[in-house]
Amino acid sequence: MSEKAQIGVTGLAVMGRNLARNFARHGHTVALHNRSYGRTKELVEQFGHEGTFIPAETAEEFVASLERPRRVVIMVKAGGPTDAVIDEFAPLLEPGDMLIDAGNAHYLDTRRREAALKEKGLHFVGAGVSGGEEGALHGPSIMPGGPKESYDALGPLLEDIAAKVDGEPCCVHVGPDGAGHFVKMVHNGIEYADMQLIAEAYDLLRQVGGHEPGEIAEIFSGWNEGRLGSYLIEITAEVLKQVDAASGKPFVDIVLDQAEQKGTGRWTVQAALDLGVPVSGIAESVFARALSGGADVRKAAADAGLPGPSAAAAHPGDLQADVEQALFASKIVAYAQGFQQIQAASKEYDWEIDPGAMAKIWRAGCIIRAKFLDFIKQAYDKQPELATLLVDDYFLDAVSGAQDAWRRVVATSAAHGIPSPGFSSALAYYDGLRAERLPAALIQGQRDFFGAHTYRRVDKPGSFHTLWATDDRTEIES
Amino acid sequence: MSEKAQIGVTGLAVMGRNLARNFARHGHTVALHNRSYGRTKELVEQFGHEGTFIPAETAEEFVASLERPRRVVIMVKAGGPTDAVIDEFAPLLEPGDMLIDAGNAHYLDTRRREAALKEKGLHFVGAGVSGGEEGALHGPSIMPGGPKESYDALGPLLEDIAAKVDGEPCCVHVGPDGAGHFVKMVHNGIEYADMQLIAEAYDLLRQVGGHEPGEIAEIFSGWNEGRLGSYLIEITAEVLKQVDAASGKPFVDIVLDQAEQKGTGRWTVQAALDLGVPVSGIAESVFARALSGGADVRKAAADAGLPGPSAAAAHPGDLQADVEQALFASKIVAYAQGFQQIQAASKEYDWEIDPGAMAKIWRAGCIIRAKFLDFIKQAYDKQPELATLLVDDYFLDAVSGAQDAWRRVVATSAAHGIPSPGFSSALAYYDGLRAERLPAALIQGQRDFFGAHTYRRVDKPGSFHTLWATDDRTEIES
Repeated sequence: MSEKAQIGVTGLAVMGRNLARNFARHGHTVALHNRSYGRTKELVEQFGHEGTFIPAETAEEFVASLERPRRVVIMVKAGGPTDAVIDEFAPLLEPGDMLIDAGNAHYLDTRRREAALKEKGLHFVGAGVSGGEEGALHGPSIMPGGPKESYDALGPLLEDIAAKVDGEPCCVHVGPDGAGHFVKMVHNGIEYADMQLIAEAYDLLRQVGGHEPGEIAEIFSGWNEGRLGSYLIEITAEVLKQVDAASGKPFVDIVLDQAEQKGTGRWTVQAALDLGVPVSGIAESVFARALSGGADVRKAAADAGLPGPSAAAAHPGDLQADVEQALFASKIVAYAQGFQQIQAASKEYDWEIDPGAMAKIWRAGCIIRAKFLDFIKQAYDKQPELATLLVDDYFLDAVSGAQDAWRRVVATSAAHGIPSPGFSSALAYYDGLRAERLPAALIQGQRDFFGAHTYRRVDKPGSFHTLWATDDRTEIES
Repeated sequence: MSEKAQIGVTGLAVMGRNLARNFARHGHTVALHNRSYGRTKELVEQFGHEGTFIPAETAEEFVASLERPRRVVIMVKAGGPTDAVIDEFAPLLEPGDMLIDAGNAHYLDTRRREAALKEKGLHFVGAGVSGGEEGALHGPSIMPGGPKESYDALGPLLEDIAAKVDGEPCCVHVGPDGAGHFVKMVHNGIEYADMQLIAEAYDLLRQVGGHEPGEIAEIFSGWNEGRLGSYLIEITAEVLKQVDAASGKPFVDIVLDQAEQKGTGRWTVQAALDLGVPVSGIAESVFARALSGGADVRKAAADAGLPGPSAAAAHPGDLQADVEQALFASKIVAYAQGFQQIQAASKEYDWEIDPGAMAKIWRAGCIIRAKFLDFIKQAYDKQPELATLLVDDYFLDAVSGAQDAWRRVVATSAAHGIPSPGFSSALAYYDGLRAERLPAALIQGQRDFFGAHTYRRVDKPGSFHTLWATDDRTEIES
């Protein structure tokens, strides 16, 4: 065999297969490997005409077919299977070769793997890939981490297959070791929040506004033309206008209302807790899915007949316009929280992530692609150290204009008994952030009372403790 | 030395010292050990008259002074220091001896340690101890896990020093391995939620009601006589009536409004995420503290001038009475979520925890002691498999009576721009639980659209996928 492959893919289930085809369609010779050779053969039989593939039966053949430095894309299940593939290939590779994990690994696993392979002179690149099967084939958003120098040899290939916006690829080197997988995880966390907010908007329009799913589809289609324009809003309209063939009912009414999840939303919240970043919007979204899935508890509640509001006044305003404002403002909060988490992690792990570049590469190929991301990019381009998106001119204007409507929507949800954890939590975050004084001072007082945890004062530096058990309750410096 | 000690304590900082004194005051001979002997001597010099202590300079002396089976209480920092002490003592002990970790260890560490020591025939007991320094001395609430058989020899001593309610000790064997530390962790998580809700009640009474801290202290004192009666409500009144000697201002106004935390609230939420239990009340409390502590972000928000509501109507009702209702209802939700988490973990780890017994041992000695816990105990005594506290008669009555007021309070918070993440999140949870249909069905539709994640139907079993990319969008069974 004389021709060598520029890149290889091991793990040829649908995501791996589509990535391999995407590389081939862009003129790269692609080495193929899979645990069972059947899938490899099948790919070549079905899609061999799309480009040049070098199928390999064994790992050794596969490695031998790659040009140096070797670029091996791993697309297998996260966890044990990924470790197994790494253990299989690492001994066959030589210093400077690259292993690219394109699955949804936890960023701490990626950090561990990168450190272990670095000792062998190998480059390990944890790359977040968003866009599902279609994205993998037609152009995903790619978030590669790993050693900066690996990007020189790898980046151009990834940029070739990535989605494009005005000719610019949705792919950039995110940062060292686990940075790519971290950013992909937060992307998914934001996606959870986005979907929950859309679901709440739908629920209010239906239950308070009295609109049928088909009408709400129209409303979403309209919103999709404005500042909310995004893939998720677009597909929401598609889902809502779908009619179930069997029953003739709206599709959304025949789907069991128990949302499922795969874990990246949960990981995002767990990581945010460790970093001390309040991502309440993502947390409420994960919990709303968990609540919906808790069939036993919901059944018990239904059997007991937990009562709803006795009576509720009509929404004081234009519900549709107000919900659009609440949705946009809450979405801004969710993104502000997610980007703050990325910035916090970047600081914690010395990743030097450019937040504007993340917004840029999310503009196409991925699930949360939206017009809105242009403004996030601009905000961070203007001010890379921005403390929160909420203070950028565009977003400040938006929430300023939205806040009265947003308040009305949260009040109406409460009055009508429509669960809006996303809208109300986002508003509480906004009001917390802008509060001149928070009742956290009382919490510090309680903590000092029962646990002598001390407090700081507003008027002088130092740590203080009040001797609460004594009669005169003197304050001492501690 | 002829007399042997019934129990030994190693680690004589304030918590360990107070536990040792508590044992001695109850007539037990207590062996003492500390890394530096100075502290041991100091304890005997200052408190030797309280009972019988056997000070030991070395671990060997300490172990030799204990009767069999030996009971060694470890009270050192969680993490590395605890492992170091275990490594020091384990080789000196004999089968059947007990190591009792009374610190705030993570329950997964406790599981690991218990399994490792079991192989050596030693009993490792992770015991949650709540009540701070005062509790340790005068009677804490104790939540011991570990092997059931260890409780025969250890339980009576712990019950001696525990807080009592009507003569009954606030101590019970919680369950195997990490069960005790898990329950203690959730106790702390609930404590976070309780404190946040109290802080929100205070904030509303002050900012919407226009009351001064001294007046609010009176309101809390009044509430403390009713169904909200609890240690946290009681000390809130004490903190609010405190006047700063230096400035003459209310104490709560001179305390820096940045709440701190030690980690057990965070752990609770992280564990709940893994268990799939929605503990939104605890999560919002942890995030509210994180938000308050984010000085940079708050400063940026203040500098940018995030706007508040243009105008807000007066609260439509008796604010004070309504806030009491909102506080009580939200508190019920927080406890319902926490107890659900305990039940889920009990199932996951085969701990067979009796939730009623947990409510019982929290009635005195610990920070969240409250009248209210009697009703939780009764609810689980009646129905140990209760799906959620909210459907028990007492709590169902309480939330039914509270809900209209609760809705008014959430609406007023939103309208007035007072952050109430705890109240609003609890209400959203309540409304989610009682919803006949949730918009989670739309989320399932979105997930099927972009990721072929499939959905279930309300009208027949199986998993389904709609071919969204095709013209006729047929549904297939998958």
